Amino acid sequence: MPIIQSLLDVDFYKFTMGQLVFLRYRDVPVTYALTNRTREIRLASVVDKAELREELDHARSLRFNNSELHYLRGTNEYGDRMFSEDYLHFLRDLKLPEYDLEEIDGSFELRFEGPWSEAIYWETLALALLNELYYRNLLRKLSSFERDLVYAEGRVRLAHKIRVLREHPEIEFVDFGTRRRFSREWQHYVDRTLAEELPGQFVGTSATESALLHGLVPMGTSAHELYMVMSGIMHESEDRIRASHNQVLTDWWELYGWGLSVAVTDTYGSEFFFQDMTEAQASVWKGLRHDSGDPFEFGERAVRFYEQHGIDPRKKLLIFSDGLELDTILRLSERFHGRVELSFGWGTNLTNDMGFDPIAIVVKAVEVAGRRTVKLSDNLAKASGSKEDIARFKRIFGHGHEHVEALRY
Amino acid sequence: MPIIQSLLDVDFYKFTMGQLVFLRYRDVPVTYALTNRTREIRLASVVDKAELREELDHARSLRFNNSELHYLRGTNEYGDRMFSEDYLHFLRDLKLPEYDLEEIDGSFELRFEGPWSEAIYWETLALALLNELYYRNLLRKLSSFERDLVYAEGRVRLAHKIRVLREHPEIEFVDFGTRRRFSREWQHYVDRTLAEELPGQFVGTSATESALLHGLVPMGTSAHELYMVMSGIMHESEDRIRASHNQVLTDWWELYGWGLSVAVTDTYGSEFFFQDMTEAQASVWKGLRHDSGDPFEFGERAVRFYEQHGIDPRKKLLIFSDGLELDTILRLSERFHGRVELSFGWGTNLTNDMGFDPIAIVVKAVEVAGRRTVKLSDNLAKASGSKEDIARFKRIFGHGHEHVEALRY
Repeated sequence: MPIIQSLLDVDFYKFTMGQLVFLRYRDVPVTYALTNRTREIRLASVVDKAELREELDHARSLRFNNSELHYLRGTNEYGDRMFSEDYLHFLRDLKLPEYDLEEIDGSFELRFEGPWSEAIYWETLALALLNELYYRNLLRKLSSFERDLVYAEGRVRLAHKIRVLREHPEIEFVDFGTRRRFSREWQHYVDRTLAEELPGQFVGTSATESALLHGLVPMGTSAHELYMVMSGIMHESEDRIRASHNQVLTDWWELYGWGLSVAVTDTYGSEFFFQDMTEAQASVWKGLRHDSGDPFEFGERAVRFYEQHGIDPRKKLLIFSDGLELDTILRLSERFHGRVELSFGWGTNLTNDMGFDPIAIVVKAVEVAGRRTVKLSDNLAKASGSKEDIARFKRIFGHGHEHVEALRY
Repeated sequence: MPIIQSLLDVDFYKFTMGQLVFLRYRDVPVTYALTNRTREIRLASVVDKAELREELDHARSLRFNNSELHYLRGTNEYGDRMFSEDYLHFLRDLKLPEYDLEEIDGSFELRFEGPWSEAIYWETLALALLNELYYRNLLRKLSSFERDLVYAEGRVRLAHKIRVLREHPEIEFVDFGTRRRFSREWQHYVDRTLAEELPGQFVGTSATESALLHGLVPMGTSAHELYMVMSGIMHESEDRIRASHNQVLTDWWELYGWGLSVAVTDTYGSEFFFQDMTEAQASVWKGLRHDSGDPFEFGERAVRFYEQHGIDPRKKLLIFSDGLELDTILRLSERFHGRVELSFGWGTNLTNDMGFDPIAIVVKAVEVAGRRTVKLSDNLAKASGSKEDIARFKRIFGHGHEHVEALRY
């Protein structure tokens, strides 16, 4: 069985972002590339290149079918008729663009180049299939009983999460673990199980295909790539680059209004975000998503941000989605429950907690029409860009000089 | 595994009719009842009553899930946004009404009473599950190899159909076989296979769940029950009863317009239909469905009907759906291809051609607010109603006296 069985097997935010891109920036040439943040693991020494190629080719052979388009057309949780017929028509004909795969020194160089409106869908597909291939290969080295044990361990750990969360019925969370899942099958098992065992608390999944198959609410709004690419589109001056951040907020609100108005805050560091989001925006947007840096500090900062603008933070949603584990969720809930509306986008540790170490792979938009992108983040390890670009962007976005050295591209 | 796994596992026309009923006649009390036209087979001697009860109870435990409602909301093949939010909201809360099951003399008496808007969904569910239980029990009596042979025979017969139809690329057809299918699994296998092997000719399926799962177009418009129940609603005089037939056409057109404008013609005999459908209606409606009587005569009559009204029959669709087999399809196509637009709703012989004899079971609307319904049909064996009612309806609908004796209720 190929790993990817449907083009719907991407995170839902690929469609919400994908539509914006299709409507406004469809022909912008963008390159996405794989980065393995777990340097000590040489993916190509575990995963066979030919096998990877086969899975990527299979994904390229897929097309959206009629039912998948019905499903998207009928999605109304974030606004009536949120996907336009033009966009659905575009999806009907979509074929993933070509990929470029090299094996260099035990690592894979994997790049996807194309019009932004087409290349955007590769990210979570490529990550999910590479992750599954990696664990498949680890499983092959085990005895039959050891393989059984992997799933047993996964079930025991899942049961523990369920037991603990049942004692905290105030906690709501979402599966955000498509990209780093142990396998498609395991993610579906986790989603199905959580829907049955914690129906009031497990409120949805970012995995669109799993949402379709299990009757769940598909969830997700947008990600760093919008901001990163937009700064490459509005590259003419430092003012324009700075303005590109708010342009994303403006575009997004124009297209989706309140329904999907949750913004990720750390593309250029959350301090810049809190300066850049206007009071008018803060008062109407549903909330914010935290994705790097200390989540407790972020939460306190967000509460102060709303209060300074005279906005009741209890009416605003904070979604935490940075490498969550059960303990962090409990502590964040303890700290912020009742002070803001809370949700948790639980990733790797939810869909890939079987006893194996996870691999921190990402696929990022790295170039826009030949210009390299930059992400600063609230955490060094999550930043990207050339040293010079990072220094420039730190200046543009009002940072000090403390982090410049250690960033990787 | 329970047989019915989703409330979407009904024929698509249950939704198109169901919405009309919900919008205009939701509280009319209607009783549906099972009839086994194959008198020599005593269903209760093959199917255990407790087992049947378990399957019916399971169906009653089902609810439409979020994805199923997305799918219906996104269905746009017959008009934009064909299902209203009010109706989808109603479906979200729908629970099938209770059933009444008795075993009498080796037969099952199975009745479903409720508001029409709720009772309407039982028909194809009950038939499909009863059929599958019947064949499951026949399979249990076979040896393991004999069971293998059943599926081998099914595949060989399916392959023959595919081979022959490939030589007639002008023939388009639809799976109409949900109610009499050998099993849910087999119907899905047939649908999947036809979609792969005859993609241009196999144009859709009436089985909504199968359409969802296989990316096919869900198909179907309406059935006799609309006319039968409407005559019970407009029962005050013979004129009103006669007028009830055209009231259905009017209601249907108002709700769906051209998209679903294919009418079944034989509720009170097709001669009456051809008198009752006005020239204005005939000119805008997409076409007609044949469901009893000689299909060749019907086709010729339909061509004459259109010609007499100055309408080009080549622009009109005739759907044949009465007990089709491959040979009939070929001969009908030979006769009418190029003279009208043609389609074939292939039922039992498509989804239940494994070597077993089919059983001719139906579930019909038999009472409306205490009044018994009447169907005359173009074929004695498909008529229903009390002797007195049939005689009265034959008079109302302008028939001679030739058939009065032999009709069953």
